[in-house]
Amino acid sequence: MRSTPRSWTVLASWSLSLVLIFLAAAPAQALDSSNVEEVTLSNGVRVLLWPDDTIPNLAVYTFWKVGSRNEAPGITGLAHFFEHMMFNGSEHFPPGEFDRTMEAAGGSNNAYTSANVTVYQDWVPASALEITLDLEADRIRALSVDPELVESERGVVMSERRRSVEDDNHSLMWEQLMSSAYMAHPYQWPVIGWRSDIENWRQQDVEDFHRTWYAVNNALFVICGAYDRDELIGLLEEKIGSIEAREVGRDVVTVEPEQRGERRVELRKEAQMGSVLVGWHVPETAHEDIRVLELADLILSSGESSRLYRRLVDQDQIALWAWGDTDNNFDPGLYQMLVQSREGVDGTTIEAALYEEIDRMKNEPVTDDELQKAKNMLVAGFYRDMATISGRANQLGSFEIFHGDWRKLFDVVGTYESIQAEDIQRVLSTWLTAQNRTVVTLIPTQDTEAGNAR
Amino acid sequence: MRSTPRSWTVLASWSLSLVLIFLAAAPAQALDSSNVEEVTLSNGVRVLLWPDDTIPNLAVYTFWKVGSRNEAPGITGLAHFFEHMMFNGSEHFPPGEFDRTMEAAGGSNNAYTSANVTVYQDWVPASALEITLDLEADRIRALSVDPELVESERGVVMSERRRSVEDDNHSLMWEQLMSSAYMAHPYQWPVIGWRSDIENWRQQDVEDFHRTWYAVNNALFVICGAYDRDELIGLLEEKIGSIEAREVGRDVVTVEPEQRGERRVELRKEAQMGSVLVGWHVPETAHEDIRVLELADLILSSGESSRLYRRLVDQDQIALWAWGDTDNNFDPGLYQMLVQSREGVDGTTIEAALYEEIDRMKNEPVTDDELQKAKNMLVAGFYRDMATISGRANQLGSFEIFHGDWRKLFDVVGTYESIQAEDIQRVLSTWLTAQNRTVVTLIPTQDTEAGNAR
Repeated sequence: MRSTPRSWTVLASWSLSLVLIFLAAAPAQALDSSNVEEVTLSNGVRVLLWPDDTIPNLAVYTFWKVGSRNEAPGITGLAHFFEHMMFNGSEHFPPGEFDRTMEAAGGSNNAYTSANVTVYQDWVPASALEITLDLEADRIRALSVDPELVESERGVVMSERRRSVEDDNHSLMWEQLMSSAYMAHPYQWPVIGWRSDIENWRQQDVEDFHRTWYAVNNALFVICGAYDRDELIGLLEEKIGSIEAREVGRDVVTVEPEQRGERRVELRKEAQMGSVLVGWHVPETAHEDIRVLELADLILSSGESSRLYRRLVDQDQIALWAWGDTDNNFDPGLYQMLVQSREGVDGTTIEAALYEEIDRMKNEPVTDDELQKAKNMLVAGFYRDMATISGRANQLGSFEIFHGDWRKLFDVVGTYESIQAEDIQRVLSTWLTAQNRTVVTLIPTQDTEAGNAR
Repeated sequence: MRSTPRSWTVLASWSLSLVLIFLAAAPAQALDSSNVEEVTLSNGVRVLLWPDDTIPNLAVYTFWKVGSRNEAPGITGLAHFFEHMMFNGSEHFPPGEFDRTMEAAGGSNNAYTSANVTVYQDWVPASALEITLDLEADRIRALSVDPELVESERGVVMSERRRSVEDDNHSLMWEQLMSSAYMAHPYQWPVIGWRSDIENWRQQDVEDFHRTWYAVNNALFVICGAYDRDELIGLLEEKIGSIEAREVGRDVVTVEPEQRGERRVELRKEAQMGSVLVGWHVPETAHEDIRVLELADLILSSGESSRLYRRLVDQDQIALWAWGDTDNNFDPGLYQMLVQSREGVDGTTIEAALYEEIDRMKNEPVTDDELQKAKNMLVAGFYRDMATISGRANQLGSFEIFHGDWRKLFDVVGTYESIQAEDIQRVLSTWLTAQNRTVVTLIPTQDTEAGNAR
């Protein structure tokens, strides 16, 4: 069967930075919520529009509110599987034609799946508006879930799992972190799915999952760029608004119980060097403490002037790099730190230094310089995103989805600016505690040793 | 609403020993597979019959192949919930009437739910055969899943969860063990269900679960005692065989990935004394190594002459008791040890002594005396079960369900007798390794301290 070279992305935390392959220039207009228009089509589907005719391009983003959190044991991986299937043909566009048609019109696309959402990104010339909406509408209305395609794509996903998880120590560590830090909540399984589940999805499971979650009313459309408003709304109504709405699956109700003590997981595996991955339970993305954590994380782990780099890499020379992340989550997530040890350094040494630096930030306010620099980074990053139609489509959709209201996008700079050093102390003291953390340690072994550790 | 005093049992490992409240005397006839009759009713339902007219009683056991492993996040606890609902009324027997009718006929009953099965046990005089089958058939054909009853029973289960799990340190530890030792497999959630799930089951979820799993063909009936064969088969065909068979839900396909390093979980909680709970991944019940583990466990942890008692309680005086268990599981399970520390003794001390004793059993063969004594205990226990019609119904059903063939019941004594000291060394060395274990430690705290540990 055909195989399209496509950079499928299972959105693990460290692949967060999306590669925006079609950038438009900075807009002349102000970043003002009054520029954004909210449209509800006759079937109830919501569309966010943001005009910008600086260059004659369009970013068409479709946010589907379905991710691995909507799965269950036995059918893990199906959300990501449909990210693949959505390019495998529909009524008017046989397999391969989605990409070919879009490329012929001068556009390109990508997609990613996280625990929370599946996002499809089209970057096209303004002239390709109608064909782009045709392509999107056709795969929503009449996606092919042909058993032969399912089998072939199952094989593709299996080898993706092998390559991107099983042969990747940090991904394996992340899989162990999530499944250990979460006891009850569906964030515990990997977005790509457990191997045995991928092998065993039935045709019926695949079709049920598609019917349950790919109802057109479960999508949010975000379109930024150079469009004629009346033409766009007319086309949206004709192509998307005409698709029948239907019932969507039930939202996640499981609440993760409070963690009441440290959890530790060893991963013994052939490797050159050890690593330490720590995850602390933190609130959902919409919670104000997450803004503070984003700031604290920059001070701790971003770049060579960050506290962890200076301590672990420069001063103690025990690590090669340190990385921290807060993620976008509907439900309470994890703040994660990953430290790559130098050869021969064990996890205990790394952890001691790491916790010392975190405690220092709890006990003493960060300096004004550090605070201002981190704010500058956040704000600059925000404006960098806002400088492209792709970035704006992505941010607008993300704020609507993860913060519950796209308007909050226009407050975020002010929110960052208002954060004080004592907020960092409070937030780190609240969430980054020993009893709230899960630690995964990669312990390098000789291949033969791993199976024999007693 | 009515409330029947009933000893509902969520079958956690340490409540394994069923209270058999209606014992019949030992049968004169030999323990021979030729006494057992296998009947298939016209709707495909299978019944195992074992006649015994020593006393004029009957044990009617119904094994439903549904347990918490057939649930998913969001609907955890529903299998156990139906253990409750099955007593809440049906077409011909309104709420309360199941128990009243059975008691009026001189019988009694109980039920339990595990991760694998839900088992209903009726102990009745032979004269109550027809009414017993009427009661069973009616709740299979026409169980009431009335929303008002569902709400009331939800409250009962919530308080059961509070009492038997949340206020019970060892149950809480067990919950943490299962959810940490299992990353992927549905054995990871508690049989009673997560609190947020119990609170959120929808009427639709409840009805779907019932329809999916309580198809009559998903039950195995086992009847032991004083019956007239032709009358019994006639009644079974009339009452049970006439219920329409239908499709049953999909069996569990998720395979737990191999554990590649020790996992440790702390539970900080107000308590008088600490405890240590260790679980090692072992095969499913039908696997021959489980017979060896059962034997090894007796030598390690059964009674005051066991190795762990002599070492931890008598000699080192660091523990009050030690308990070990293999459980009945369709899929690979855990071998578990729970040690109750003496006040002031910490988990590290307990673990060191525990692993030393296990290593000693790996490295040196157990003595002939120990081996013979353990075999005697297993065999005596087996014959003790076999001495009652209840015990026989339970064992016959369990072997059919967990070993795949009731005939294996009649080989089990020979299997135990054939086990050698080196089998114990091999099995413990294979499964009871550091990299295959999960350790949950209860760390006593002052109440105020628990929330503040840094």
